Amino acid sequence: MVNFNFISPTKIVFGKNTEKHVGEEIAEYSKKILLLYGSGNIKRMGLYDKVTDSLKKAHVEFVELSGVKPNPRLSLVNEGIKICRENEIDFILAVGGGSVIDTAKAIGVGVPYEGDVWDFYMGYKTPHKSLPVGVVLTIAAAGSEASKSSVITNENGWYKRGLNIDLIRPKFAIMNPELTYTVSPYQTAAGAADIMAHVMERYFTAIKNVDLTDRLCEGTLKAVISNVPIALEQPDNYNARAEIMWAGTIAHNDLLETGRIGDWASHQIEHELSAIYDIAHGAGLAIIFPAWMEYVYKTNINRFAQFALRVWDIEYCFDFPEKTAAAGINKLKNFFIDLGLPTTLKDAGIPDDRIEEMASKCKMTNGDTVGTFVKLTRNDVLNILKNAL
Amino acid sequence: MVNFNFISPTKIVFGKNTEKHVGEEIAEYSKKILLLYGSGNIKRMGLYDKVTDSLKKAHVEFVELSGVKPNPRLSLVNEGIKICRENEIDFILAVGGGSVIDTAKAIGVGVPYEGDVWDFYMGYKTPHKSLPVGVVLTIAAAGSEASKSSVITNENGWYKRGLNIDLIRPKFAIMNPELTYTVSPYQTAAGAADIMAHVMERYFTAIKNVDLTDRLCEGTLKAVISNVPIALEQPDNYNARAEIMWAGTIAHNDLLETGRIGDWASHQIEHELSAIYDIAHGAGLAIIFPAWMEYVYKTNINRFAQFALRVWDIEYCFDFPEKTAAAGINKLKNFFIDLGLPTTLKDAGIPDDRIEEMASKCKMTNGDTVGTFVKLTRNDVLNILKNAL
Repeated sequence: MVNFNFISPTKIVFGKNTEKHVGEEIAEYSKKILLLYGSGNIKRMGLYDKVTDSLKKAHVEFVELSGVKPNPRLSLVNEGIKICRENEIDFILAVGGGSVIDTAKAIGVGVPYEGDVWDFYMGYKTPHKSLPVGVVLTIAAAGSEASKSSVITNENGWYKRGLNIDLIRPKFAIMNPELTYTVSPYQTAAGAADIMAHVMERYFTAIKNVDLTDRLCEGTLKAVISNVPIALEQPDNYNARAEIMWAGTIAHNDLLETGRIGDWASHQIEHELSAIYDIAHGAGLAIIFPAWMEYVYKTNINRFAQFALRVWDIEYCFDFPEKTAAAGINKLKNFFIDLGLPTTLKDAGIPDDRIEEMASKCKMTNGDTVGTFVKLTRNDVLNILKNAL
Repeated sequence: MVNFNFISPTKIVFGKNTEKHVGEEIAEYSKKILLLYGSGNIKRMGLYDKVTDSLKKAHVEFVELSGVKPNPRLSLVNEGIKICRENEIDFILAVGGGSVIDTAKAIGVGVPYEGDVWDFYMGYKTPHKSLPVGVVLTIAAAGSEASKSSVITNENGWYKRGLNIDLIRPKFAIMNPELTYTVSPYQTAAGAADIMAHVMERYFTAIKNVDLTDRLCEGTLKAVISNVPIALEQPDNYNARAEIMWAGTIAHNDLLETGRIGDWASHQIEHELSAIYDIAHGAGLAIIFPAWMEYVYKTNINRFAQFALRVWDIEYCFDFPEKTAAAGINKLKNFFIDLGLPTTLKDAGIPDDRIEEMASKCKMTNGDTVGTFVKLTRNDVLNILKNAL
């Protein structure tokens, strides 16, 4: 186990009807906020009215900004920064999923900063101040509601880059599983893949002696694996939606990375995929993660065998442990297929003509390699993308 | 799953040499603190010097109060309150284990309160203010370093009572597993029983559809079960000590109670035991918990069978599921025995002449019953104590 600092101060307000309390939660921080959301969807589902009623009751003034898209864009972040400054806004409420929350976080660090907010995403500067952010969550996937991450796409070159810092963890997250009943089967499945990927990025670590967090990772995966098929079959099954929603938060608030170092290569590779082709991040991960696994598993058969045994209940093959390891990867892949997700680029309708571009743009987080479980060169990244064809 | 609010904002600073940073952690809160500890033990182990050096470097002034005992006493709490008021102290640093931390929390809510701090423990009043508390942890057991609990014994009648409120969660907890190398085998074992009991109080719930938190509970138990024997055999095994220490925090910061309602009857019953006989809380729990289990398990065979399968790897007996359930309880009991803990009152040298008194003093948290998995009457409590003879 390695030394770590861990702080996850986001207040979770979880359960039925909790969105009605958003005004009260905000009132202790602000009287004038930016209300940020994606599309008219939150109006159709009646959430917009509930939220704005609650704000009015708590005497919280709001200025609206909508239009956040999946794989959220820098231009909207800059628009939000401008609105906040012009209106002397000191709190941002994100109503939506990861894209809306990530945009809110970006606006939050951008408002008090004199330079270009993209500096933070390129790693040129570290933010020291942020407007506080609150969340009403509508999809279980990104885990941004309690995470220290924000991922934004710069349309100028279609670079997708992440900022990771405790400063941007939301103050509160209101999580009503009922709000996810209308999430489509495909988005539910992609969200599940995203959640599982967040756990697996941490699970596949080169750090030894991480028993407790191994167990917590395995338990979180098992809970997702058993509940997602239920949610797909019965979209309004409260308990299944609740398990997935809470797992999504646990998967990405860094509890599962305490004392260990995550890999994160699959995320970096996937970012280039969704930046160019604008597919759902979770669907991209369903393609990249198994391809990454197949490429690296022989470097640590034991860890992949443990994954197979403990997560997928595969019996250990004493004579050929690598068979056990490979069987776990197959189970994962088949699980994604059963959920209706793509597991190859072809499945997602993505041609092979830009994989070299994707490999060349992939952020090499260690300088000239990416990942920690196995350090991948650009050539390895290209091979993984080829495997994913 | 039931609705819940969850906030666990304690900053965890975990790993080797982390105690050297205590001054820096405090500096953002205070320039004059109460330094609270138990005995001269922290001097013998060199911790006192490291902590005070760090305080001096950070220009943090300190007033000392020592003498905190296991099953900590109200009189020392009142002494601490007086010292803080007289010296205009605005931060309390607890260096030690659960007793020291619980005392610090009690002093914290007592200082700004005009009445008797015991009011809070009797439930007559709710605290609204507290001095901030920081922790340097020296034993893995109570989980008080990030919990909302404080348990204090009033010598006037030897009542042991708890306060549970988010307000008293520590601001930070410095956790260096090396500091637990000198914890005796008996205290290590008792600490493990305390940690396991914190998980099991939450595991045995009447709430349905709690998959994720079930899995997290089971994983935490398994990590403790596999690492405690290692720590007993090799007291300076860093990794085993680290797993147990971090499990102790996870076990009691309420993550494992999200969406479910814990039982807590065993804790209430044990409080009377350690209040009168002053035995280690964890040792008391090793006696009471199996007795409670044997008394209640037939009301929910499935849950106890799940405990047996998933925590103890017992095969499910399809013809006689209650055998599976009972086998799990036996495994737990034998595990405690293997650790060198008492599992009967007799083992602990406790006579049978005051069990009626203990039953009559036990706090009935539901009015006339205690517990939620099964609601126990006073007569049930007496029967459990009889079973524990």
